[in-house]
Amino acid sequence: MSNTPPVRSLGAISTSRIEAFSDGVFAIATTLLVLEIAVPRVEEGEDLFVALLNLWPSYLAYLVSFLTIGIMWINHHFLIGLFQRVNRPLLFLNLGLLAVVSFIPFPTAVLAEYLPEGSGPQLSAATTLYGVVMLLLTVMFALLWRHAGRATDELRDADATRPIIRRALRFTIAAASAYVTAIVVAAFVPIVALALFAVVVLLFAFGRLAK
Amino acid sequence: MSNTPPVRSLGAISTSRIEAFSDGVFAIATTLLVLEIAVPRVEEGEDLFVALLNLWPSYLAYLVSFLTIGIMWINHHFLIGLFQRVNRPLLFLNLGLLAVVSFIPFPTAVLAEYLPEGSGPQLSAATTLYGVVMLLLTVMFALLWRHAGRATDELRDADATRPIIRRALRFTIAAASAYVTAIVVAAFVPIVALALFAVVVLLFAFGRLAK
Amino acid sequence: MSNTPPVRSLGAISTSRIEAFSDGVFAIATTLLVLEIAVPRVEEGEDLFVALLNLWPSYLAYLVSFLTIGIMWINHHFLIGLFQRVNRPLLFLNLGLLAVVSFIPFPTAVLAEYLPEGSGPQLSAATTLYGVVMLLLTVMFALLWRHAGRATDELRDADATRPIIRRALRFTIAAASAYVTAIVVAAFVPIVALALFAVVVLLFAFGRLAK
Amino acid sequence: MSNTPPVRSLGAISTSRIEAFSDGVFAIATTLLVLEIAVPRVEEGEDLFVALLNLWPSYLAYLVSFLTIGIMWINHHFLIGLFQRVNRPLLFLNLGLLAVVSFIPFPTAVLAEYLPEGSGPQLSAATTLYGVVMLLLTVMFALLWRHAGRATDELRDADATRPIIRRALRFTIAAASAYVTAIVVAAFVPIVALALFAVVVLLFAFGRLAK
Repeated sequence: MSNTPPVRSLGAISTSRIEAFSDGVFAIATTLLVLEIAVPRVEEGEDLFVALLNLWPSYLAYLVSFLTIGIMWINHHFLIGLFQRVNRPLLFLNLGLLAVVSFIPFPTAVLAEYLPEGSGPQLSAATTLYGVVMLLLTVMFALLWRHAGRATDELRDADATRPIIRRALRFTIAAASAYVTAIVVAAFVPIVALALFAVVVLLFAFGRLAK
Repeated sequence: MSNTPPVRSLGAISTSRIEAFSDGVFAIATTLLVLEIAVPRVEEGEDLFVALLNLWPSYLAYLVSFLTIGIMWINHHFLIGLFQRVNRPLLFLNLGLLAVVSFIPFPTAVLAEYLPEGSGPQLSAATTLYGVVMLLLTVMFALLWRHAGRATDELRDADATRPIIRRALRFTIAAASAYVTAIVVAAFVPIVALALFAVVVLLFAFGRLAK
Repeated sequence: MSNTPPVRSLGAISTSRIEAFSDGVFAIATTLLVLEIAVPRVEEGEDLFVALLNLWPSYLAYLVSFLTIGIMWINHHFLIGLFQRVNRPLLFLNLGLLAVVSFIPFPTAVLAEYLPEGSGPQLSAATTLYGVVMLLLTVMFALLWRHAGRATDELRDADATRPIIRRALRFTIAAASAYVTAIVVAAFVPIVALALFAVVVLLFAFGRLAK
Repeated sequence: MSNTPPVRSLGAISTSRIEAFSDGVFAIATTLLVLEIAVPRVEEGEDLFVALLNLWPSYLAYLVSFLTIGIMWINHHFLIGLFQRVNRPLLFLNLGLLAVVSFIPFPTAVLAEYLPEGSGPQLSAATTLYGVVMLLLTVMFALLWRHAGRATDELRDADATRPIIRRALRFTIAAASAYVTAIVVAAFVPIVALALFAVVVLLFAFGRLAK
């Protein structure tokens, strides 16, 4: 930092600031998920215990979305950590990614609302919405990885990271394909599409992307 | 820091703390935007898919406000980065700016509620509210840039940054004029005013303010 | 840090972590204030413009609470900055303070709801609630300042800061007295009590506590 | 850091980033608690003052949950501070812990809703839910402490911390037993179970876990 000319560095946003802002958005998006679960108000003769158990779709949707955002946070940190300098495309691709991340509480709440139906057109619609948002997330990640693959000058250790980036890009494109498949399947058997979402999350979690 | 007398530095808030607090407010304001979109609850015979598509004004308002706050965050970071010391006016001008930033979810939700009407007095009122809040945002930025232009002693590299500050101030005043125009136009053709908002956001995004 | 024995330092929480957590709570508490303002939904023949103007008590309550939390943040940072080590009482007094800070959105929303009545028992009750929470805030600050006055070993520069702490403690007790007065007055003329709240905020803002 | 081979360190997430993300989740979870308290809207002839006093269960639940999360934050910081390197199990155990932490506003709100009943099946159900979530929290902590006890290579000072970890693990298992007892008791006398929750919080607060 001490060697760069002062004017040039004035406008530069350090990768640590990008991470601080992104960490904030990731942390808040995960925490807001719980606000979508409303307190059940039972009538005379009803049982709160049963009402709380009946909220299982909300608990499940909360858990899957929490883990999804958490794993994306890990991958995001890995990705930003490759860069030693922030340029304008990285800044805006990152903003785009965060816009999708902080949108996740909405499709999660929609899914939780219609999951108890088990099948039918409403659950298909809710599943499709969830799949489209997840697909957008993957597309933003793919664009960021592609940008990393091209922005050799901004990378910390370009030669060493090149194979990592290629693998991550293939990995992300595979996930995108899985989400496209899930969106198509959602129109017919939404439950199978939902199982596909869980599989992709587990792949992201146990895949060798982040150490 | 080691050269400043201890008592004096006791009360000083570092620019990094101002950034941490501001980053928090920016990150939360962007993330709260999604809470304003309610889960549609469809009746017998209705179609959730259609109901979700009909929420497009909420999606659009979410996206524009997210990008607006995101770009303001970039510019804010650029601005604070010019200072090497925090004084009382900077502290309070910054608080004023943050008060406007964290207010944005409200006009965004109002706009999303009345955007489907396409025209008429209600959309005019909603557009005016959005324009006034955006104008306030620009005014706070203009005051901060003017303060930067005067607080030469607190700046990191006063000579080098002077032309940058002048340009930023002109840029911000131009944006304020655009918002005033949009507010006037909103009374007659709100849709044109909304297009103007988008133009200003794009100018801020691709203008040469932040590197 | 390198000179302290390893086991002892294991349990120590640095002042910077206390600040990071506190910054988060302050930033979120300010940002949540806007969630208490509901989007007005106008009926046929009503005017959204008028409905938005009629929300002025919400805007005013938002602004006063935002500034109050913002100024408390400045003072809090000043206070924590005096310490070079964190001990258990500081940790728990700080938790108590944060519990009050993050409670502020509730009395703010209650006040905004009943402010339009202008007078009467309901506004008295809302004003009393607001005053009690503000009083609690001042009490927590007084306890923290008193702790700073006694924890000489934990302070960065005990001799130099002693007069500062004494002044801050006097200042805080004066504010507490003003809030007690406001709570008594609120039972009879709530509007006068509200004006007192604003006076205290301004005193905190322009008083010589934080540089 | 300078001695590790570049590729290996690329994927490593520093403990400070884990803390930053965790701090965010803890701070937001505490702050969201207040959103669950709705503004009372009194009818003609009712008294807002009484309505506000009647909200005491919400205030109490807010306070207990705030302190619980605050103390967990202290213990969490202590635990993460033991590690010098982050590995995959730590990352995922931590995500699991955060998923429980940010869920706490929900059982808190349910408890506040049914606390005024004082006894009966609904309060039993609400107390059970609260106890189960607290038990999950303790289980996640126990898993993290056990992981610390085994991950000797990742620890900062393995020999010195070993007795600390053993004591913390015993402490956590004792807390888990108390929660299991409370869940059983909740089915018969929920008020006694609630008192047990408070006792555990105080033990965590004044126990010798964190310095």
